[in-house]
Amino acid sequence: MDKPKILENIRVVLSHTSHPGNIGAAARAMKTMGLTRLVLINPRFFPDAQAEAMAAGATDILEQAQICASLDEALQGCVLVAGMSARVRDISQEVLPPRQAAALLAQQASNQPVALLFGTEMSGLTNEEVARCQVLVRIPVNPDFTSLNLAAAVQLLSYEMRLAAGQGDCGAPELHPAPAEQVERYFQHLEVVLGEIGFLHSKHPTKLMHKLRRLYARARLEQEEINILRGILTVTLEHHAKKAEEKEDV
Amino acid sequence: MDKPKILENIRVVLSHTSHPGNIGAAARAMKTMGLTRLVLINPRFFPDAQAEAMAAGATDILEQAQICASLDEALQGCVLVAGMSARVRDISQEVLPPRQAAALLAQQASNQPVALLFGTEMSGLTNEEVARCQVLVRIPVNPDFTSLNLAAAVQLLSYEMRLAAGQGDCGAPELHPAPAEQVERYFQHLEVVLGEIGFLHSKHPTKLMHKLRRLYARARLEQEEINILRGILTVTLEHHAKKAEEKEDV
Repeated sequence: MDKPKILENIRVVLSHTSHPGNIGAAARAMKTMGLTRLVLINPRFFPDAQAEAMAAGATDILEQAQICASLDEALQGCVLVAGMSARVRDISQEVLPPRQAAALLAQQASNQPVALLFGTEMSGLTNEEVARCQVLVRIPVNPDFTSLNLAAAVQLLSYEMRLAAGQGDCGAPELHPAPAEQVERYFQHLEVVLGEIGFLHSKHPTKLMHKLRRLYARARLEQEEINILRGILTVTLEHHAKKAEEKEDV
Repeated sequence: MDKPKILENIRVVLSHTSHPGNIGAAARAMKTMGLTRLVLINPRFFPDAQAEAMAAGATDILEQAQICASLDEALQGCVLVAGMSARVRDISQEVLPPRQAAALLAQQASNQPVALLFGTEMSGLTNEEVARCQVLVRIPVNPDFTSLNLAAAVQLLSYEMRLAAGQGDCGAPELHPAPAEQVERYFQHLEVVLGEIGFLHSKHPTKLMHKLRRLYARARLEQEEINILRGILTVTLEHHAKKAEEKEDV
């Protein structure tokens, strides 16, 4: 599966959008997630300065946006159409949460265009538009406050599409935990030093060491961290020995 | 795990936000996902009419927002602090993608407060703020356009928190596929009618029926749909019989 191609094959279709600011914000949301194909069915105002302002640099998406006079034109060639729906309808297509819908769309989008269809800000998709969808997508929302902004919905779906397209790597630096023997040498060093400085005088030295092991187990020590901690232990012991000497000198 | 409590225990902390509209949009984003606790560290303008306007009904979140003079005050009592970070840093805490971070936060938030910490629009978190986080969260973005709006980031994280808190049910009507014997009776009926009207004259009636089975298997027929389809078959046969009679009459 050619992964960048999946994102290229996803059309974001906004039908009869009222506020041009939402078109701009939707373009910005799409671009942050690597989507590029914006299709507008009879937008109320477009092009528009407010759309430009809200796009915050995603103006290329706006410039390349396809403006259509009909749903037929907007969906031409799409092999799967997923409509955003907030309403519960008497009869409807299959309704999926965003994650499952994204998986389904990504599968088809590997080699053919698919569409995510968004209705108007006020009333969502018309019944005619719903009839043209193979699946509906419903974003789980707080039932007491369902007022999800259009661009926010585009953001969530674009995000799920990016993850479904296998582009979800956030470039996180990997942790490189040290090998077991190095971690073990640290614990031996720690135990010796704690004994020397008189901290293991308790009746339960094993229990204390067990608790310290638990702490560092959770942290999954890296080699460099072990070096720092053992450096501290070495200096602690030197300092302790010096103090002891000074005491003897007195 | 008391699930609604998880969302109650999540503090969204916005540090030194420049644009009050972003505070309002963040409040709206939080509320759509069931989050309620907004904490503002030295916001540039707040309260503010633009925040109110962008909250679009989430004014209760703004009214209850806690305004703090310091990070210490904002994080008081939090047992886990996750900072949003777009930058790759030389030395940093563990970096997780949103989904994994949300799972970790939800686990802790079942009985104690946790925080999602967001830096300024222009420069994100300061080094001092990063140092106070146990984990960093990085949203996977298009490397060529990383300009994710602050409220959009709050929206994505709030969404992931809602899913991680087990509130991801989108209330989709379930499909109720009919039992096997009903589906089978439909296929038998179909085969009889296709034979009667002369459509199964081909040399491969079994192959044709297999293709039709494949189609309906994907659709997973419900009982009502079977009733409709069999109704069509019955009328088709009646119509065919009538036509045949008329022909004989001529």
